[in-house]
Amino acid sequence: MNNININATSTPPSGGRGASVRVFAPATVANVVCGFDVLGFAVNEPGDEVVMRLTDKPGITISKITGDDGRLPLDPAKNTVSVSVQHYLQSIGRPELGLDIELHKKMPIGSGLGSSSASTVAGLFAAKTLLDDETDVMQLLPFAMKGEEMACGHGHADNVAPALLGGFILVRSYDPLEVIRLPHPEGLYCTVVFPDVDVPTREARQIIRNKVLLKDAVTQWGNIAGLVSGLFMQDIDLIGRSMQDILVEPVRSMLIPDFYRMRELAMEAGAVGFGISGSGPSVFALTKDETTARNITQKLQQHLTHIKIYSQGYVSPVNAAGPRVLERF
Amino acid sequence: MNNININATSTPPSGGRGASVRVFAPATVANVVCGFDVLGFAVNEPGDEVVMRLTDKPGITISKITGDDGRLPLDPAKNTVSVSVQHYLQSIGRPELGLDIELHKKMPIGSGLGSSSASTVAGLFAAKTLLDDETDVMQLLPFAMKGEEMACGHGHADNVAPALLGGFILVRSYDPLEVIRLPHPEGLYCTVVFPDVDVPTREARQIIRNKVLLKDAVTQWGNIAGLVSGLFMQDIDLIGRSMQDILVEPVRSMLIPDFYRMRELAMEAGAVGFGISGSGPSVFALTKDETTARNITQKLQQHLTHIKIYSQGYVSPVNAAGPRVLERF
Repeated sequence: MNNININATSTPPSGGRGASVRVFAPATVANVVCGFDVLGFAVNEPGDEVVMRLTDKPGITISKITGDDGRLPLDPAKNTVSVSVQHYLQSIGRPELGLDIELHKKMPIGSGLGSSSASTVAGLFAAKTLLDDETDVMQLLPFAMKGEEMACGHGHADNVAPALLGGFILVRSYDPLEVIRLPHPEGLYCTVVFPDVDVPTREARQIIRNKVLLKDAVTQWGNIAGLVSGLFMQDIDLIGRSMQDILVEPVRSMLIPDFYRMRELAMEAGAVGFGISGSGPSVFALTKDETTARNITQKLQQHLTHIKIYSQGYVSPVNAAGPRVLERF
Repeated sequence: MNNININATSTPPSGGRGASVRVFAPATVANVVCGFDVLGFAVNEPGDEVVMRLTDKPGITISKITGDDGRLPLDPAKNTVSVSVQHYLQSIGRPELGLDIELHKKMPIGSGLGSSSASTVAGLFAAKTLLDDETDVMQLLPFAMKGEEMACGHGHADNVAPALLGGFILVRSYDPLEVIRLPHPEGLYCTVVFPDVDVPTREARQIIRNKVLLKDAVTQWGNIAGLVSGLFMQDIDLIGRSMQDILVEPVRSMLIPDFYRMRELAMEAGAVGFGISGSGPSVFALTKDETTARNITQKLQQHLTHIKIYSQGYVSPVNAAGPRVLERF
């Protein structure tokens, strides 16, 4: 982090124009079926918002959290957003800076959509914006991972990296950390459906076997190589053919109501590919256009209603930009 | 194979101009370190040659094999070249066609360089050429795999596909078979060194564990996705960083004399990446230019001489074209 170059002295200490910012950061679909722990992409909807303002009092406070049904801690030592931001402030030599955070959850928690990542990235991007820190957003990744480690018990990057950078992101290596921005075909749409059943990330990880057959791993890496090729070649059908997972999905799908029936419905309705978002229970489909995405979302939600499960549905293009400033005031 | 379209009647039955052909097919480096069983590329040197001529007598004969030290069968029912060609002739409705084959081995057998693939592909391409078969060379892949199955006890495509198509080839899926031609950075050079020790393919496969840790598989598919990205992005350094194998190399390298010392020598001399070619014992390095490749080949061969192992070395660019007709007469 030696090359972070901050020009914070030009920022008003508190109050006045420029001392507050409202930032959006996107939800993310990790794994993308065949890329367990190494691949993810961001969507335009849903996402979280953070309002952050500079204060005169040293240290970080969290004055408000909405949309979380009281599930997230206001204690800045326990909230992933404030913890990540604190790490960032330390790294730039401003540990005593006064910041107040409002977190507005606009997406379900524990849904497999990178909820904590969206909040954390929104917080970090808000702080970077307030401090007029011009360094590459990539520099924030280690701090976002600190938050992820706290939220999920492991410092995986397949949600935080796409939330931070937008688009499709490959985590080539964790040690040393290397993430690669992949292209994607224009017009690629995503439908996300969250069936409101509880599948905590920790438990969803624990049911996965820690040993796999080499021949299954070979099948899997043929598919991830195919998916990456499809993204570069703008070949949507190749992307679809590659979206197969014989290792993790057969286990995790057991925790998701009528997973295979939902896949059938999505594929019949023209999905390019369908699978579990992150550790679930949300499912997602990629489509070639918005109409197909809307149609699939409707079919999946109707099916879930039919089996008496409440759900939330989202339709949006792949998010190419990562977090964005909604307002500076 | 329904769309194979043959215009064989215009070909003279034997003798005369056009009834004989001499074809080269390239050696191949399978796996490319992190792409076990799904990735391979072709090199310009070494390779095999087949001379084939139409005869009046129905059926395939093998009149000559050179460069094999008497190790390959002249019996057309037992030789991979003739068996593959026979499958091809059957598929196009010409099972009784008379063909004579001369096989000139110009590369070591059992070296991990796709020796049987090079011979088989040369034979198939020679037959296609003699028959003026205009269909895509990709159509020959299933027949080449038949030969591979006979030679190695398994029908893998990571040697035959690059030998047939040239360049870097991804085998995305075996069932159904799907191979994808990947781009590669211009100027990419390859050094190949074959230490003359015996590592039969079957045995080299058998020492590999059939179960692996999921976390190691994740590391591996991060790397193969990184390697594929590097090929598309023309990012030679990314290609190099991705050329790591924690699953197969640690086991197979035990069969190769001073493998890790050779890697050290290659990397110190500026290799982009270094590893085992196929199941070994040949090793290979990718480099950014010919001079570096020549230098590495020399260093590796000197080292092998020093430890009293005879070796053969080859330097060539990545072969982009696959097999080629050397002469038609």
